[in-house]
Amino acid sequence: MNLPNLDSIETPAALVDEDRLESNLHKAAAYMRERGLRWRPHTKTHKVPELAARQLRAGAAGITVATPREAEVMGTVAEDVLLAYSPVGDSKLARLMALPRKVRLSVGLDSREALAGLAGAARGAGRTVGVLVELDMGMRRVGVQTPEETVALAREAAGAQGLEYRGVMFYPGHIRMPMAEQGPALAEVSRRLAPFLEALEAAGLKPEVVSGGSTPTLWRSHEVVGMNEVRPGITPFFDRASAWMGVCGWEEVAYSVLATVVSTAVPGQAVIDAGSKALAKEELPVGGYGALLERPEVVVHALSEEHGLLDLSRTAWRPRVGERVRVVPNHVCVSVNLQEELWAVRAGQVVGRWDVTGRGRGPA
Amino acid sequence: MNLPNLDSIETPAALVDEDRLESNLHKAAAYMRERGLRWRPHTKTHKVPELAARQLRAGAAGITVATPREAEVMGTVAEDVLLAYSPVGDSKLARLMALPRKVRLSVGLDSREALAGLAGAARGAGRTVGVLVELDMGMRRVGVQTPEETVALAREAAGAQGLEYRGVMFYPGHIRMPMAEQGPALAEVSRRLAPFLEALEAAGLKPEVVSGGSTPTLWRSHEVVGMNEVRPGITPFFDRASAWMGVCGWEEVAYSVLATVVSTAVPGQAVIDAGSKALAKEELPVGGYGALLERPEVVVHALSEEHGLLDLSRTAWRPRVGERVRVVPNHVCVSVNLQEELWAVRAGQVVGRWDVTGRGRGPA
Repeated sequence: MNLPNLDSIETPAALVDEDRLESNLHKAAAYMRERGLRWRPHTKTHKVPELAARQLRAGAAGITVATPREAEVMGTVAEDVLLAYSPVGDSKLARLMALPRKVRLSVGLDSREALAGLAGAARGAGRTVGVLVELDMGMRRVGVQTPEETVALAREAAGAQGLEYRGVMFYPGHIRMPMAEQGPALAEVSRRLAPFLEALEAAGLKPEVVSGGSTPTLWRSHEVVGMNEVRPGITPFFDRASAWMGVCGWEEVAYSVLATVVSTAVPGQAVIDAGSKALAKEELPVGGYGALLERPEVVVHALSEEHGLLDLSRTAWRPRVGERVRVVPNHVCVSVNLQEELWAVRAGQVVGRWDVTGRGRGPA
Repeated sequence: MNLPNLDSIETPAALVDEDRLESNLHKAAAYMRERGLRWRPHTKTHKVPELAARQLRAGAAGITVATPREAEVMGTVAEDVLLAYSPVGDSKLARLMALPRKVRLSVGLDSREALAGLAGAARGAGRTVGVLVELDMGMRRVGVQTPEETVALAREAAGAQGLEYRGVMFYPGHIRMPMAEQGPALAEVSRRLAPFLEALEAAGLKPEVVSGGSTPTLWRSHEVVGMNEVRPGITPFFDRASAWMGVCGWEEVAYSVLATVVSTAVPGQAVIDAGSKALAKEELPVGGYGALLERPEVVVHALSEEHGLLDLSRTAWRPRVGERVRVVPNHVCVSVNLQEELWAVRAGQVVGRWDVTGRGRGPA
């Protein structure tokens, strides 16, 4: 591969620090191993099969995906794939059924309609698809509400030709606060989860898989009683939100967007060529949409489509037009989704390039 | 072209209502004609050369782009292109200089550094590139601050080999309020603009082009004294923000995202498979991230990456899993940027497909 000089890459461009990436991967893997948790990283964060392969080599037991497209590209490197979203509609089901036979596919769902559609597709394709019943553990987005409904849906999955009941899943996405303050919320998840697990066991449907977890709660995953699998997405890269929550140190953040200062005409600020079409607009309680990797006191205080506005009020630094900076976005997943490729860098050199092949719906 | 049935298109997918699109195009063109304004639509909204070609056929005098990639794809259909953003860095400049010779290129800029880079590239390529000096008319993002600096930069452009001074530009992006309330803000722009135009004229640098405008201020563009060119982007499609500001009626909105209801497990809401990776997260004073085209009282009250949460509190409608809906996002430009293609529809039939070729940086 012919790799460009870092200085010649057109901005905005996404950079991944190779050393930090490797360190983050192995730190997550070590935690999971020590705590006896199955690690099933969510690949929606990077959408790059080569990175999923690295996660598997580092010890992941399988991977998680968000879309049929992600399942297709990740199915080239992973043999155990969880689609953590209800696939509803013929096109999505057909694409899932066309995955290579060696891919052990599981799907999360919370309705009889989704279950019936999946069972029909699996029978038609002569495949067996695993089912995890999705539970609402407090996020109030998706997920079955009561142990009774859970038992009913699990029973239906267990009895359906083409399906195999494998357990339950949930996503504690409502726990987005500094790590040190998560204790009560995690205890509440354990308390909520218990009656679901008891009801399933009483019905002879003890879940083999109890899948949960997130990056914010990553290092406290072991506190959720009964959970045996964790699906963090952001972990290999981290982002400004992760650092704010104390899930990583600033010096562990591996992802940034390289940008060029394009205007200093308005006093008190500098404008870069990375806006909402490169960083994505995601809010954080501390304000701003990102911060400079090398000067975290410089915050991107406003975004338009192609412009980010750097607040210079807390720095003596005065950039000139043409200077380049690296911006850490608040939420890495949505920033990666805006990139065509990620550039791997080490010590100021470009050492690799990954196409973000899992974006969108892919070739029709 | 083999076009699919609307019902078989995988969701989320972007739809454009052909009849509304045509009507919006011609309404904008008629306004510009009647008011004697040059119409230079901003193609960052759609990023589709076929749609730029339609705008030109409807009467646009040229087009506006945001990136070298957009200039490349639009340069296949347009002979007069304004890059309304300072191109800083060798890669961007090289791509601009490689545009077909028949493309009359102009560039907006607000610094001597950007001007020097552009002049050097133009001389090296043996081209002449037009310059519009960008002014800050109250948005405080980019733009020269004083008439004196403007005259200095215009003079430098006028004297630089490879460059041709053509006038001034500004973007009144701070005027984002209901149309009926815009009068004082527009008068303030006229008042701010006057001394810049006077100083330029006094210096023998009377601008041929005074380019401004936006979609929020579209129908009141003629109130800005001295402006002779307008660059609205959102106009052919419109969006929830446009409707909120009264720039269009709800029945004029041509763009929507087709989505499938994937969960109704949590009472009081329905969850669709269009989230921030299809609609984009952009706030509006009225709250929510979008609303249903056919049921505007149903608002998308929360977004995660692959999920939109429909608030059912103001409707008796109770969707079932599998039902499809069309969502109007708050800001169409950032939603289009998340799509691989746009589907043209008329009377429930797919009648065309446009690839969003202007996204990202394009083939390296």
